[in-house]
Amino acid sequence: MTAWTSSALHTDRYELTMLDAALRDGTAGRRCVFELFGRRLPGGRRFGVVAGTGRLLMLLRDFRFGHDELRYLRDERVVDAETIDFLEGYRFSGDITGYREGELYFPGSPILTVEGTFAEAVVLETLALSVLNHDSAVATAAARMSVAAGERPLAEMGSRRAGEASAIAAARAAYIAGFSATSNLEAGRRWGIPTMGTAAHAWTLLHDTEEAAFRAQVETLGVDTTLLVDTYDIREGVETAVRVAGTGLGGVRIDSGDLPIVAAEVRELLDELGAIDTKITVTSDLDEYAIAALAASPVDSYGVGTSVVTGSGTPTAGMVYKLVARQDDDGAWIGVEKASADKASRGGRKAAFRTLDEGTATSELIVVSDGFEQIDTPDRHPGARALQVPLVVNGETDASYEGPEGVEAARRHHARVREELPVRALALSRSDPAIPTVYVDADAV
Amino acid sequence: MTAWTSSALHTDRYELTMLDAALRDGTAGRRCVFELFGRRLPGGRRFGVVAGTGRLLMLLRDFRFGHDELRYLRDERVVDAETIDFLEGYRFSGDITGYREGELYFPGSPILTVEGTFAEAVVLETLALSVLNHDSAVATAAARMSVAAGERPLAEMGSRRAGEASAIAAARAAYIAGFSATSNLEAGRRWGIPTMGTAAHAWTLLHDTEEAAFRAQVETLGVDTTLLVDTYDIREGVETAVRVAGTGLGGVRIDSGDLPIVAAEVRELLDELGAIDTKITVTSDLDEYAIAALAASPVDSYGVGTSVVTGSGTPTAGMVYKLVARQDDDGAWIGVEKASADKASRGGRKAAFRTLDEGTATSELIVVSDGFEQIDTPDRHPGARALQVPLVVNGETDASYEGPEGVEAARRHHARVREELPVRALALSRSDPAIPTVYVDADAV
Repeated sequence: MTAWTSSALHTDRYELTMLDAALRDGTAGRRCVFELFGRRLPGGRRFGVVAGTGRLLMLLRDFRFGHDELRYLRDERVVDAETIDFLEGYRFSGDITGYREGELYFPGSPILTVEGTFAEAVVLETLALSVLNHDSAVATAAARMSVAAGERPLAEMGSRRAGEASAIAAARAAYIAGFSATSNLEAGRRWGIPTMGTAAHAWTLLHDTEEAAFRAQVETLGVDTTLLVDTYDIREGVETAVRVAGTGLGGVRIDSGDLPIVAAEVRELLDELGAIDTKITVTSDLDEYAIAALAASPVDSYGVGTSVVTGSGTPTAGMVYKLVARQDDDGAWIGVEKASADKASRGGRKAAFRTLDEGTATSELIVVSDGFEQIDTPDRHPGARALQVPLVVNGETDASYEGPEGVEAARRHHARVREELPVRALALSRSDPAIPTVYVDADAV
Repeated sequence: MTAWTSSALHTDRYELTMLDAALRDGTAGRRCVFELFGRRLPGGRRFGVVAGTGRLLMLLRDFRFGHDELRYLRDERVVDAETIDFLEGYRFSGDITGYREGELYFPGSPILTVEGTFAEAVVLETLALSVLNHDSAVATAAARMSVAAGERPLAEMGSRRAGEASAIAAARAAYIAGFSATSNLEAGRRWGIPTMGTAAHAWTLLHDTEEAAFRAQVETLGVDTTLLVDTYDIREGVETAVRVAGTGLGGVRIDSGDLPIVAAEVRELLDELGAIDTKITVTSDLDEYAIAALAASPVDSYGVGTSVVTGSGTPTAGMVYKLVARQDDDGAWIGVEKASADKASRGGRKAAFRTLDEGTATSELIVVSDGFEQIDTPDRHPGARALQVPLVVNGETDASYEGPEGVEAARRHHARVREELPVRALALSRSDPAIPTVYVDADAV
């Protein structure tokens, strides 16, 4: 296949037309601060989960305009010759600070802060938003499912219900937010996520009898495998499964029916047959509400498809990328904000802290400054936790956030910070954010 | 970046464990027919639009297990050595027939029919579903927006609200379903889709005054450009725009506020200022309903973001990939179907026709056969249009469906077949499918 290995055209045209005009009128070199944040938590979520940061940093390395990209821009007359020259040498040389992957976020949280010249920072808008909006929407939904599932393991198996590349990213985001495995082999290869899966209904239908299918599966995968028992009659399926595999059968999977009722019946039947250690996994159209409704049922694990990869009703986190400060011709910093009806933004650079009371989060404290002094933990909030870390310094990426290691670190970080949430954050119903976002002026802290 | 150019691990693990077991028990070579279809049209859609076919055919070419893929499968012990050998030589050598890209579909429509050995067909499930579920969900939403917009052009600009690769596929699907342009440059390069875009709010905020921003934009992009007028006060923005560009200004863009009211005010002001040919484009959180509500407003074009790339409430088409027929040991074909509660399927191979009455669709006629004779247009429906075309024959793809040419052909095909829809199909409210799906036995036609 044609390998499009540059990420540089994952870009909306207007970013390059702005660049084109800025190179001409001399504003391209003004230093700017762009901020990536969500105005609200869509879907009545009580908290958000940041995901995608490690992927973005890797894509940023490949954000280079090569011969093919430049030819396209030239042929289509997207920009003029001077801009083509600029893009040929493009390499982001600024700074990016941001929330760690796996961190919780709330309305206004400065999830990424990108500082550089206008020219180098403006072109990252679409790529940064695409990655963080998608991955954070999935991670946020996955975290709710993880809360609902409690100690029972969750497997992500929704690849078929998401674009083929987003499916891999979704598996990664779900794992960061508490899932324990994925069905997607590419996610396993690329990100080191454990993979799972045994057989589909096609396996049973391929064979002359259900028994022949189960026998062949057990012979290859061992008695510890999970047999799918609902292709025909589920009671007969369970009986056949235990007859074939013995009472040491690893598990049965149920993919249809009224799950609380069916799971109870299957458990009873397995116990009757002596298969008391055989696990039950359920996989039929689950979301966080269905998982919560199964809390009292004899279910051992869940497989979740459509709902997790589509953000369970909220397929995008709705984050935006806005210019919040820039230098003027004299090098002085100016906070800038638009005044548009219903889409107003807040100018100035932000430093973010989570204030805690005996380990429980009480607010998202955002300190706003037009100037650019280093902002330490505010004196009046001695237990507050600083939320931003350097991700890119002078164009150099911190590699510890990339690859499978970055994924594991994000998963651990998420598990740790989720413990800080107040109990009310864990309810599934639509509500306001679990903690308020509090803005204070840098001079006032 | 590490270039993952094989699509072969866009696969759920269970497909390979089934393959592993099938190679061992001798069923791997049984010829099978898998069918890709939707059980229903989710979201109360009245029709669906097939998209992704051309992309899938291109990804199928790259569905090869290379050294890296095999090493991962070996290291993770996903399959045994015999299966590794089989995968090393894997190349799909069967047949795929299906609906043309851009075609309409209804519940049960056999959108793809994949025929080959169990071994070669079972492994395509996830990739085929990922591509078609995503792209068809977007195309279906886009077609509804296109209906609502009538003759006014629609631009897709939702890349930032979709995963970075899905964004490109979404731009492509929207274009097939009637959009006229995209903001996404990679979609322009890869698929030949016209791109559009001029400036964001950041452009105005970068400058000391709105006037300076507009002046620089007009100098670079010409008076025919579109100026974004709502960063501060929208009336002042319009006045400044016309003062800077003159009455020949190409357009103004409105990205906030109560659009029917604001658009009328802006039109009135532009006319007052003499800019009677200056166009108005609106871009704020539009979906098909908001577009319909603007039908009587003086709007010249629409830019649609989040709602189109996320399928406007239906981010996946919910299609499934099911074994519907297979050969037995004697080579006889057997229709197979599962009986699972609420997820029953219908066995047998399907031939599909759209019956028409004076050019208007009246039903989706699906002829079911266990045998495998060629099924011609049913005698009792002389005006019926056959819906399936050969896409892959003996492993060879029809290249006319690929690349930018395939996209243009799909867009033309969609425009043509949409004309067949009955008027009731064009309403936006939730309802049943616009035409019924009628199954008949092959012996009865």
